[in-house]
Amino acid sequence: VSGRSGIEVVAIGDELLLGDTIDTNGAWLGQRLAGMGLRVMRRSVVGDDEKAIRSAVEAALARVPVVICSGGLGPTPDDRTRAAVAGLYGWPLEVDESWLAVIRERFTRRGMVMPLINRVQAEVPRGATLVRNEVGTAPGLILDSDKIGLAALLPGVPSEFRWLMEHGVIEHITRRSPPSAGRVQKRVLRVTGIAESALAERIADVESSLAPLTLAYLPTGTSIDLRLTCWGDLPEAEAGAALDTAEQKLAERLGPLAWGRGDDDLATLLGEALRARGLRIAVAESCTGGLVAKRLTDAAGASDYMLAGVITYSNESKQTLLGVDPALFEAHGAVSEAVAGAMLEGVRVRTGATCAISVTGVAGPGGGTAEKPVGTVWIGAAAGERTRVSLYRLFGTRAEIRARACQAALKQLFDLLRET
Amino acid sequence: VSGRSGIEVVAIGDELLLGDTIDTNGAWLGQRLAGMGLRVMRRSVVGDDEKAIRSAVEAALARVPVVICSGGLGPTPDDRTRAAVAGLYGWPLEVDESWLAVIRERFTRRGMVMPLINRVQAEVPRGATLVRNEVGTAPGLILDSDKIGLAALLPGVPSEFRWLMEHGVIEHITRRSPPSAGRVQKRVLRVTGIAESALAERIADVESSLAPLTLAYLPTGTSIDLRLTCWGDLPEAEAGAALDTAEQKLAERLGPLAWGRGDDDLATLLGEALRARGLRIAVAESCTGGLVAKRLTDAAGASDYMLAGVITYSNESKQTLLGVDPALFEAHGAVSEAVAGAMLEGVRVRTGATCAISVTGVAGPGGGTAEKPVGTVWIGAAAGERTRVSLYRLFGTRAEIRARACQAALKQLFDLLRET
Repeated sequence: VSGRSGIEVVAIGDELLLGDTIDTNGAWLGQRLAGMGLRVMRRSVVGDDEKAIRSAVEAALARVPVVICSGGLGPTPDDRTRAAVAGLYGWPLEVDESWLAVIRERFTRRGMVMPLINRVQAEVPRGATLVRNEVGTAPGLILDSDKIGLAALLPGVPSEFRWLMEHGVIEHITRRSPPSAGRVQKRVLRVTGIAESALAERIADVESSLAPLTLAYLPTGTSIDLRLTCWGDLPEAEAGAALDTAEQKLAERLGPLAWGRGDDDLATLLGEALRARGLRIAVAESCTGGLVAKRLTDAAGASDYMLAGVITYSNESKQTLLGVDPALFEAHGAVSEAVAGAMLEGVRVRTGATCAISVTGVAGPGGGTAEKPVGTVWIGAAAGERTRVSLYRLFGTRAEIRARACQAALKQLFDLLRET
Repeated sequence: VSGRSGIEVVAIGDELLLGDTIDTNGAWLGQRLAGMGLRVMRRSVVGDDEKAIRSAVEAALARVPVVICSGGLGPTPDDRTRAAVAGLYGWPLEVDESWLAVIRERFTRRGMVMPLINRVQAEVPRGATLVRNEVGTAPGLILDSDKIGLAALLPGVPSEFRWLMEHGVIEHITRRSPPSAGRVQKRVLRVTGIAESALAERIADVESSLAPLTLAYLPTGTSIDLRLTCWGDLPEAEAGAALDTAEQKLAERLGPLAWGRGDDDLATLLGEALRARGLRIAVAESCTGGLVAKRLTDAAGASDYMLAGVITYSNESKQTLLGVDPALFEAHGAVSEAVAGAMLEGVRVRTGATCAISVTGVAGPGGGTAEKPVGTVWIGAAAGERTRVSLYRLFGTRAEIRARACQAALKQLFDLLRET
């Protein structure tokens, strides 16, 4: 057993494999443990089958000293985790009378008689440690043997899983598998306006000098997150300094392409910039159909800077609601620099806003031509006297093109404000 | 290899283990395959580590004949899946010139030069089948050998993963591992406008007579999905008939509360109803800030029925853009039946639309009063001569209230159209 390190997770439940439930415990646990310097090496999901549970836990304990199991501790016959893991350790199940009394008392307090089937939730493998569950009837169970390793069994209900981790299980785990070195530390830079591969080329030399930090490219649909990770192999202060330096180098290289950090939201940052300058915005949208306005009003207090929006989903409405000259449609088409500019001007005049965004494009899947294929989007942005109208060629499904056009529009105004 | 059955899934990515990304491909795939009578036996998640990827795929292929891998096919150095699995099969990686040309052409079409590092995405293990990816640059790869089994490699980006499954990968899989016996069959009824507990009471007697079918209540945020499941323990035709009967009984009991089936989308159904009647819609939104218009234009071809939208996020813009009489704000406040009605009328007059929706409310978290607490929303709907303005008291976070107000608005017009 000695020499091995790390933690594996085994999630149990037919509903997870059938896809009726999305396993959120795994992501939560990964973040929670990484923040302490503990590393999840592998996660497995198996069904409500005693043999499969036992074989997954056994294989995991051959690789790492600690395995955390979630699910399969309920009172019904499809709950097999307790028996499977007790069998692996060769420890018989015995009823813990004091926990049985706790369960019974909880039912009594609610004016009910404990159903007989709940008795199984008081069964504990002989030699295991019971971790009291104040938010449910299945206790946590810690099986620990020098020969086999440590298995922690927790219910799969997220609220109970988290509560038990925080109230005893993490303590048991860190005693057995102390955090390797420093905790895992991360920095995220959010980038919009460049393809992933072009981004990689642009920062190739910075990337090659990052070790022992690692760099990951995480496309989110509307941005690429550059995640710098220090895996705990440096002393904590040194790790922080190395991450700061690396983040700084990347940010310098990328300039305005890198618009945010961590879980920043571009619409929120733009809203804050508008509020700080006392500006009020109006938007004129065609292909994004309200998405830009929706994102600008996602944040509480958006009325400080959001004045109005106009969605003109027809040439007719561009004319009546924004005063776009119908001659422009004939001369340039609705998706054109001229119309994006006229929409921008129209929405400012009609609302009196100091800032504006306009969007007109082909979101698809129909409506594309050789000259203006699906993904062709003209975006206008105005801040005070300064105006910019730009062409984008976006790719993806209709939903992706709309989301990317929206992000590009927010970015265009954000950049315009940053430049002044 | 013979005699083994079932499918395993291996998801690859440090971000999945660290919890920065929640794996949604696993759940989608579980549902998709269960619907065909194919069973996922185990799912494993490993990091961006060639040895770990290889060992997970190798272990899975020792248990089942088919393994589906997602993730680790990007162009950057942390993408290791291609090399790991090719190594397991002992097949060298070779550049597929015709796929390379496809990638290059896609960059060219967007006026860009393909970065050199994208070349790795055209590498195919000798003997593997390439599945063309029309929505991204990483193709699907099928490695199939009698001795080892079948490994399908797909990118982890959910839209690409799903597209490739539907466009070739499922076909390869079912050829190698035909569906076992009774497939799991499901029916879903979508319900909006009633609390979960009230819904349970309303259908209690229907529910108690459903066995062997099971009924699940799945709240989606804007609706409650009632899911009837037949777990493959009835002959296929019998299962279908039992589900039909049960669905019918529930639909009758619920009347217009049950507005859709399966994965119906209310905005899409409303759009179809408008198109079928030759009606055109305009929306006037305050607290939903563009969400209603956004949802109405999510569907391709929305310009058939969507005319325009006006987002009035201030009293001033309600007046200038919709002609709302400012005396109404003083007499009733912006969140009132009178203003919802005036917005509804104003947007119809200014756009000439035959149908309209208006929304004005308090999305919170600030802005609530004793009389009009957060969640108070007035909604207007008009179809031809018929008009209805109704009050809703919604709960939840700002985002939830906005989403529920939007759903309620779509539902109100949908009901109005159904009644005529």
